[in-house]
Amino acid sequence: MGVGQEDRSAAVRAEHLRKGSNTSMRATFMHGPGDVRVEDVPDPRVERPTDAVVRVVLACVCGSDLHPYRSAATTDEARPMGHEFLGVVEDTGSEVTGLERGDFVVSPFAFADNTCPICLDGFHTACPRGGWYGAGGVGGAQAEAVRVPQADGTLVKVPGDVDPALLPSLLALTDVYLTGHHAARMGRVGPGKTVTVIGDGAVGLSAVLASRRMGAERIILMGHHTSRTDLGREWGATDVVAERGEEGIAKVVELTGGEGSPVVLEAVGLMPAYEQAYGVVRPGGVISRVGVPQYELAPVGFGSLFGKNAGLTGGPAPVRAYLEQAVDDVLRGLVDPGRVFDAEVGLDQVADAYRRMDSRSNLKVVVRP
Amino acid sequence: MGVGQEDRSAAVRAEHLRKGSNTSMRATFMHGPGDVRVEDVPDPRVERPTDAVVRVVLACVCGSDLHPYRSAATTDEARPMGHEFLGVVEDTGSEVTGLERGDFVVSPFAFADNTCPICLDGFHTACPRGGWYGAGGVGGAQAEAVRVPQADGTLVKVPGDVDPALLPSLLALTDVYLTGHHAARMGRVGPGKTVTVIGDGAVGLSAVLASRRMGAERIILMGHHTSRTDLGREWGATDVVAERGEEGIAKVVELTGGEGSPVVLEAVGLMPAYEQAYGVVRPGGVISRVGVPQYELAPVGFGSLFGKNAGLTGGPAPVRAYLEQAVDDVLRGLVDPGRVFDAEVGLDQVADAYRRMDSRSNLKVVVRP
Repeated sequence: MGVGQEDRSAAVRAEHLRKGSNTSMRATFMHGPGDVRVEDVPDPRVERPTDAVVRVVLACVCGSDLHPYRSAATTDEARPMGHEFLGVVEDTGSEVTGLERGDFVVSPFAFADNTCPICLDGFHTACPRGGWYGAGGVGGAQAEAVRVPQADGTLVKVPGDVDPALLPSLLALTDVYLTGHHAARMGRVGPGKTVTVIGDGAVGLSAVLASRRMGAERIILMGHHTSRTDLGREWGATDVVAERGEEGIAKVVELTGGEGSPVVLEAVGLMPAYEQAYGVVRPGGVISRVGVPQYELAPVGFGSLFGKNAGLTGGPAPVRAYLEQAVDDVLRGLVDPGRVFDAEVGLDQVADAYRRMDSRSNLKVVVRP
Repeated sequence: MGVGQEDRSAAVRAEHLRKGSNTSMRATFMHGPGDVRVEDVPDPRVERPTDAVVRVVLACVCGSDLHPYRSAATTDEARPMGHEFLGVVEDTGSEVTGLERGDFVVSPFAFADNTCPICLDGFHTACPRGGWYGAGGVGGAQAEAVRVPQADGTLVKVPGDVDPALLPSLLALTDVYLTGHHAARMGRVGPGKTVTVIGDGAVGLSAVLASRRMGAERIILMGHHTSRTDLGREWGATDVVAERGEEGIAKVVELTGGEGSPVVLEAVGLMPAYEQAYGVVRPGGVISRVGVPQYELAPVGFGSLFGKNAGLTGGPAPVRAYLEQAVDDVLRGLVDPGRVFDAEVGLDQVADAYRRMDSRSNLKVVVRP
């Protein structure tokens, strides 16, 4: 990394800390389906001794943000949006020992203490002291700044000075890439394995990249947006199945010698994707879900999972468990998950980012406050 | 094994082969709920070159036989019953090479070719050439004799002469014990693990025994029939939770330090047991089901499995995959799964066996043709 880059990096920090002197900031709220607004709100402050406040350098819009965008009930209570961000620490609570003002940090999409037995098991998204951005009095990350509870457990410092060209890939670690990685890990992807990935969104493509990194030999990507599946091929998909439903299932079964796919990574969260998943899974195989399910009840009986001893696994990715290693991989140039970003907007244009992703004009949009 | 035992063993075989000279036999059929009858039917014969006909020495009634006993539709078509048996080979088809008349054999509850890729993976119950006793033109095992398709792949010869005292334990291998074993195996039970078993039927108790054999350190048995949970304790249960529903869930969560059970073996198949399972499972843990689900739809979304990254696995046990090792374990006296049998009837009293098991007067009843 050259001197010029160090200078740029230092300049980025200084600029973001300077912004922190404001007493109000701009933040994104959803008021109802399709109704995303950027509004002035008070600057977040340290409320508990374990909090930090982070000035946001980059945020983005998630596929899961589109679920309420399409179907949220209109309520009086506006919902703070955004859970993926990189930023600079602006303030820390009295019990925060591992961070200081000026640190450049990456946050997982959920906060956690990183010390309880559940976190030590590697399931940070179920941490009893953890939670979600944009809920329970914690703001969203599509904003100029955000309060981070359990800051010592949650935030990972990026060592040294960061090449700005790597920022999109670091941003992708906060959710989509490590969600794809979690899908692959829970599906026990490994060398020589055949894997079917359902969904060509940012998470599905990330699951392709992660599966290839774990040594999968054959990666069948189910998706029908050519511009996306083309990136999937670059990242390691050996086959693309554009057909959906029964036709898509038949194609995957045919591609796997009539037996089905031993590992299925479901990166959508809608019932048709789940149905495809149990349709293509091989007897004794596993379906690993990371698309947030937009259903509670699903088929699991003799005719779907049980009869063929198919397993179901997955859940919200414990990004924190994988984050340090992944930051290192990005800094060393071993993965480039930031390629899922194909547009950037300023914070005031965030509603446009939602529109573009909803219409599939863009895959994933960076928001720069 | 003494000479007397060898004589008895030889006598058993001769007697069973002599019976084979009849041209009709007695077999069990279910005509509707609670309507079990023993009827005269033609002796089974070799129909395909891969078939064998086995004269039944011992059969039994399964917990899963009670599902139709309680709720089967009354139809004109009587349903042949029974899928657990030991017997003596009476006849073999022209392509059967590994068996001959007089061999004493144990059958898994499902037949399979044991050579296809799915069987080689160890999931025999999904073998494309496999199937179930009592369906598709194959008779049931609560009968004097049964035709066994894919005989070379299905039947396991018991080497040497068999001590009659071991017959119940060999009979338990045909389904319940190895179904409990499968639950534990799919749940990745291992040394030091904490396991919760839901259900104190023969399969649940077998799951306790199998978990202990695999080194589980703590085994919490959820069941409220003291005579059964007592056997569970003998077999390795360290805690018994008699409470059900929310109360039972709270008890198990309390017993596991507030975090839940990393492994849950569900050996019932009814929705309340499934609900208990996702209630007690620890984040990142696994629910392994082997009770045949009497439901198709079940909660799997954010509020049940997904939110805590809980896995769901299991299915019909591929008994054949485990049978040779288990026969050896029984013959060496390492396990005594036959203790689940607490009564024996003759074939003509089979309806009584159903009644006794349905009323829970007996745990599991041997049927001796």
